[in-house]
Amino acid sequence: MNEQPQFAVEPWRVTEEHLQLDRIAQSESVFALSNGHIGIRGNLDEGEPFGMPGTYLGGFYETRPLPYAEAGYGYPEDGQTVVNVTNGKPIRLLVDDEPFDVRYGTLLSHTRSLDLRAGTLERVVQWRSPAGREIEVRSTRLVSFVQRAIVAIRYEVRPMDGETRIVVQSELVANEPGPMLSKDPRAAAALAAPLVAEQHEDHERRAVLVHRTQASGIRMAAGMDHVLECSEDAVVELESRDDLARLTVATEIGNGEGLVLTKLVGYGWSRRRSLPAVRDQVDAALSSAMRTGWDGIVAEQREYLDDFWAGADVEIDGDTELQQAIRFALFHTLQCGARAERRAIAAKGLTGSGYDGHAFWDTETFVLPVLTYTAPDAAADALRWRQSTLPLARERAEQLGLAGAAFPWRTIRGQECSAYWPAGTAAFHVSADVADAVIRYVEVTGDTEFERETGLELLIETARLWRSLGHHDIDGVFHIDGVTGPDEYTAIADDNVYTNLMAQRNLDGAVEAAARHPRAAAEFGVDEEEIAAWRDAAAAMHVPYDERLKVHQQSNGFTGHAEWDFAGTPPERYPLLLHFPYFDLYRKQVVKQPDLVLALYKRGDAFSAEQKARDFAYYERVTVRDSSLSACVNAIVAADVGQLDLAYDYFGEAALMDLDDLEHNTGDGVHIASLAGSWLAAVAGFGGLRDHGGELSFSPRLPRALARIAFRIRFRDRRLCVTITHGEVVYDVLEGAPLQLRHDGETLTVTHGAPQRRRWKAPDAGPRPEQPPGRAPTPRRPGARG
Amino acid sequence: MNEQPQFAVEPWRVTEEHLQLDRIAQSESVFALSNGHIGIRGNLDEGEPFGMPGTYLGGFYETRPLPYAEAGYGYPEDGQTVVNVTNGKPIRLLVDDEPFDVRYGTLLSHTRSLDLRAGTLERVVQWRSPAGREIEVRSTRLVSFVQRAIVAIRYEVRPMDGETRIVVQSELVANEPGPMLSKDPRAAAALAAPLVAEQHEDHERRAVLVHRTQASGIRMAAGMDHVLECSEDAVVELESRDDLARLTVATEIGNGEGLVLTKLVGYGWSRRRSLPAVRDQVDAALSSAMRTGWDGIVAEQREYLDDFWAGADVEIDGDTELQQAIRFALFHTLQCGARAERRAIAAKGLTGSGYDGHAFWDTETFVLPVLTYTAPDAAADALRWRQSTLPLARERAEQLGLAGAAFPWRTIRGQECSAYWPAGTAAFHVSADVADAVIRYVEVTGDTEFERETGLELLIETARLWRSLGHHDIDGVFHIDGVTGPDEYTAIADDNVYTNLMAQRNLDGAVEAAARHPRAAAEFGVDEEEIAAWRDAAAAMHVPYDERLKVHQQSNGFTGHAEWDFAGTPPERYPLLLHFPYFDLYRKQVVKQPDLVLALYKRGDAFSAEQKARDFAYYERVTVRDSSLSACVNAIVAADVGQLDLAYDYFGEAALMDLDDLEHNTGDGVHIASLAGSWLAAVAGFGGLRDHGGELSFSPRLPRALARIAFRIRFRDRRLCVTITHGEVVYDVLEGAPLQLRHDGETLTVTHGAPQRRRWKAPDAGPRPEQPPGRAPTPRRPGARG
Repeated sequence: MNEQPQFAVEPWRVTEEHLQLDRIAQSESVFALSNGHIGIRGNLDEGEPFGMPGTYLGGFYETRPLPYAEAGYGYPEDGQTVVNVTNGKPIRLLVDDEPFDVRYGTLLSHTRSLDLRAGTLERVVQWRSPAGREIEVRSTRLVSFVQRAIVAIRYEVRPMDGETRIVVQSELVANEPGPMLSKDPRAAAALAAPLVAEQHEDHERRAVLVHRTQASGIRMAAGMDHVLECSEDAVVELESRDDLARLTVATEIGNGEGLVLTKLVGYGWSRRRSLPAVRDQVDAALSSAMRTGWDGIVAEQREYLDDFWAGADVEIDGDTELQQAIRFALFHTLQCGARAERRAIAAKGLTGSGYDGHAFWDTETFVLPVLTYTAPDAAADALRWRQSTLPLARERAEQLGLAGAAFPWRTIRGQECSAYWPAGTAAFHVSADVADAVIRYVEVTGDTEFERETGLELLIETARLWRSLGHHDIDGVFHIDGVTGPDEYTAIADDNVYTNLMAQRNLDGAVEAAARHPRAAAEFGVDEEEIAAWRDAAAAMHVPYDERLKVHQQSNGFTGHAEWDFAGTPPERYPLLLHFPYFDLYRKQVVKQPDLVLALYKRGDAFSAEQKARDFAYYERVTVRDSSLSACVNAIVAADVGQLDLAYDYFGEAALMDLDDLEHNTGDGVHIASLAGSWLAAVAGFGGLRDHGGELSFSPRLPRALARIAFRIRFRDRRLCVTITHGEVVYDVLEGAPLQLRHDGETLTVTHGAPQRRRWKAPDAGPRPEQPPGRAPTPRRPGARG
Repeated sequence: MNEQPQFAVEPWRVTEEHLQLDRIAQSESVFALSNGHIGIRGNLDEGEPFGMPGTYLGGFYETRPLPYAEAGYGYPEDGQTVVNVTNGKPIRLLVDDEPFDVRYGTLLSHTRSLDLRAGTLERVVQWRSPAGREIEVRSTRLVSFVQRAIVAIRYEVRPMDGETRIVVQSELVANEPGPMLSKDPRAAAALAAPLVAEQHEDHERRAVLVHRTQASGIRMAAGMDHVLECSEDAVVELESRDDLARLTVATEIGNGEGLVLTKLVGYGWSRRRSLPAVRDQVDAALSSAMRTGWDGIVAEQREYLDDFWAGADVEIDGDTELQQAIRFALFHTLQCGARAERRAIAAKGLTGSGYDGHAFWDTETFVLPVLTYTAPDAAADALRWRQSTLPLARERAEQLGLAGAAFPWRTIRGQECSAYWPAGTAAFHVSADVADAVIRYVEVTGDTEFERETGLELLIETARLWRSLGHHDIDGVFHIDGVTGPDEYTAIADDNVYTNLMAQRNLDGAVEAAARHPRAAAEFGVDEEEIAAWRDAAAAMHVPYDERLKVHQQSNGFTGHAEWDFAGTPPERYPLLLHFPYFDLYRKQVVKQPDLVLALYKRGDAFSAEQKARDFAYYERVTVRDSSLSACVNAIVAADVGQLDLAYDYFGEAALMDLDDLEHNTGDGVHIASLAGSWLAAVAGFGGLRDHGGELSFSPRLPRALARIAFRIRFRDRRLCVTITHGEVVYDVLEGAPLQLRHDGETLTVTHGAPQRRRWKAPDAGPRPEQPPGRAPTPRRPGARG
């Protein structure tokens, strides 16, 4: 392992001051740019060397057969895999006769910097060719938040020691070779050259390639157009063929002169529209972007982000790394969702091919709460995507013998793609997580039109799922048996507390939404009997509790299981799932990621403060955090129960997951849920923000190491700023009407221009909870990076 | 479906009076001949038409990759599949210019008959060729119980209307084409031509082909030799090449004349021995068989079977079909085990490629009890096979983080081949089933040398497994969590009663065996501490009980689960596993095959009579019998609790499984466990034979429809005959020293020549237990087949 920090610490930038080839995949993910519609990894302009080349489109996938040695009823036959589509990034450079390649010649300097306010990735390189020629290349790229189909690149090359022959090749490359991503030879074959050429055309400085996928039959067009600034004697050629389009500029430049190429790349894709329609869409997007011009596109981007940060920024005083990390985290959270627009938000966003590009429950559980409070339209669109997949989710429920809609454990388009049902399909809580996100979005925005058009249907269909999935016992108690909760080290268990409490919220939410929209509900066939059945199930929901230990059971019987032999498990046998069979993990007290503890946060209204502290301490002892979804949740609940230093350690782990590559797999794409979760750690953890029952409440906390945390959120057309210092908090409405909120149980109204100041005090915490040996979070020391 | 009975009812034969091409696969299985070492399906002599061609060798397999869409730690990478090896059956016939093929010309008559005392399959065909020539073919074939490497065929052809040109071709055919057996293209490819030719030779009338498998690297030789009786002017040719050896006899025969060809086929195979060694072994076997000659081989076969039946026959008066069926069942049970000799006894024996040719827990649970009482040497060898796989079972246990030995759920060679662990590896009870078979074998035979050499090691290593698999809770109670019992519609449950009680027997058995062989036990590292730990675990074993319902829980929490919607499940949705997801089956009260009810039989000593009746009635209501392992167990326990008519119905279903093709898959091979189970239904069910604690006991029963059941068993060098009539039973020692046994709780001693007569009375049975709608066994009406 290279132990040198990879990125410099600055409040609004992430800068890599030297190229580290052994960490190139990680930096490609960290420097990935996306608007949720298009994503490009931070590959070098010249295309190689690369860790993994990557250009992704929201909802664009290829299907592949899922093999089973022993098949079973209801197993999905096809998987979906994100496709590395036509790459519009490459700008190759020939210096005299030498291709510019950082692996040859001498790299005099190489700096890349992600500007979190500008929304651009800048690169400055000084390079001496093997033949001794020195040049400087500056490039800036962005994926436009405003013009969602557009990637823009400004590429500038200057000789540093006199007249130099320069050839610049700007390309569109389809089916580019990359690393092997599957061990299954059939799947690998399908993904090696996923795109079938349909058309290529070029005209003046614009070229367009049209392809479609073989099996999923999705058509895409990628186009590029150029603005060239250089001496007039440059020879410019444009050509296109099946898998390549190329603009070539050949010229000779002297000292002080330069060549500037602005490249605009546009993408369009569709499962249904015709080839001319998709191609014309790209041409139109390019024409529009050409009209705006580079400066205009950069200005739009800045304006978009200024508006975002005004309602979303988090300031942290006392830990410059976390200050950077939290903004980096928010930036990527915005990137994955901003323009996703009714397509799935994947676990890696559009930053890598990890998890096959699938979306999971992470989206609703970790990402949408952040977007709901910072970019609510993006949250609404993500839920409209779920609504658009309801026909598939209904079909899946029916296949499983259930009513309503069963959302998939993992998918791109909406079909279940999980090939291992005990840790996939059985994790039905995903449907309650969708409902939870609906309820929160409606409460936070007051968007009743959304509720009527989208939220209601989602709540009804998921409530129906729970009603059919559970059953009343002879005492009338409602049980949900044989399901898998968030903890993937326990599966197919009865009465998982998280699942049951989230299902309860789902059922209650459906009851309330149906009451608010009786006519619309009736159109979905909801009658009083059905509503009564939901209400009964919710009221009778079982929550298993161990009376002897005075703690909740993660699921029925959990606290009676044998404990994992933590003492006998050396560090190299983590993550456990790579070294122990599921069978043994499932039947013992060992937790991969917060499950009962997640319930303490998401359904904190169902637990007393004392109970939370006892439960948290109990489950800390058996939670190994083999999932990146752990630290942020632990931070929130640790803060809640007053374990502020522990919360701070967890916060650090969540926020630095990708900048410090803590799980050694950031190269596959950033961990969107952990990044979003670090915002939750700050805002729900130290801010104590909760929205149980639609009421905005805060219970401020601050770890000793920090001097101040201030964060901004949007709530019902207002912008609120909460500033926490030791013992004190200030609530300030920056924009909008007076706002009623609760501070530590006290109801107060905050008016624009009249900040309210309050004292706060964390609860007395008991002894610091213990983690399994070797699994405690790294004690956070500000300034001492990872 | 063809509803005409396929087989005529005779006490000692199974005769097919007409060839039914739509049932040809079923008759190939029913007429399969085997000695446990070699198995040949009842394919027509001329090779086609066929349902599935099949020639199998004990323990001979090819490996193939097991594909996983989502792999996991400890998943087996390779599967094992039985191979259709070099076929020595074909004898083709040309009549004038026309190949004899039952699909062409006119089949004047076609009779095949399996003689259960002679151990032969006879065929008589009269055929008119498309050109109008009439011939008669008579063939008799056997797989020798005495000369284990030998298949013998006598083939006789006679013209029926004058001088006819006849060509007979006797062949060895390797890599013969058959139906596609796998949907996985890689697996199908591996099995399409599994044998790689290594050598072929021919000399006089003998030819030998040597092959080996590609991946598993097992070498085999198949040879044939011939005795020809026909006119001296016949032209005889012998040739051999890679995948074919052929003896051709061309002649012309007149009316009343005939051609008789005796074909001896020998097989040898080995994973380790050299090519010459394997080839020479086959030559030697052929030479030995040639010396014995056809008549000698037939006589040996008869003698072997006479001896078997003398200690195994079951007579049933009042139901001629069951009389035939029980003998057919015993014959196939003998065939699968007689000469298996330290190779696995597969679920289909060597009668078909169903279940990939794998052995399961069925062997120890259903087959070995029968062999133990009727052909004990075969039972001992089957357990010696398990012992020979102990290194693999230890390795598997270690991989799973357990001590001792974990026997595989399904295998040919000994490696775990189950690709779906919740219903495979998690069914750890297979190890207790092995131990149970060991304990029974030792008790029934008194074979202390076996116990010291083989049984002890098996008991110790399985006891170690249980000790490490379970754990004591804070009250000291011993639990075994997260395992799968026999019922495959519930998986990964805590404290499965069957598993726990069988583990208890296993632990106690190990304690006792170690006490009897302290020195040998010490050599395996057993000390007093370990024995104490086994004893403690056994004594503290948890057996979950529902105090409210007064029934045992199949596993912890089972009786609290939702009931399956039986009323809403139409007949066409059975078997359930093909129409409902595992997830839903697992979490509801629905039982595929007896699990708790199997415990009522196997561990009847752990339940009171009243409790058995209550438990049986409870579980009958939720058991759908989607497994062929069901009816025989239900018959036994129904008889035990006095439900004699119900027991009789179940007995019929178990015994006629294959003769009536009740599950429509006899074509893949006969259901050895159900066949063996029908003996158990007669002997343990109506005879009430139990051997708890090593004591031979009987509780006779007889259903109203039958007049008499008499059965013979071997017990500690004696032969005992038990004859049950209504209200009376006679115990008769046919051979050997006086025998102490228990009759309905009374201890009595039976001496050769002095049969003991006793009265019996079944317990008062309550109302007939109900089964799920449509899942009751077909009421048995003797004489009304099917």
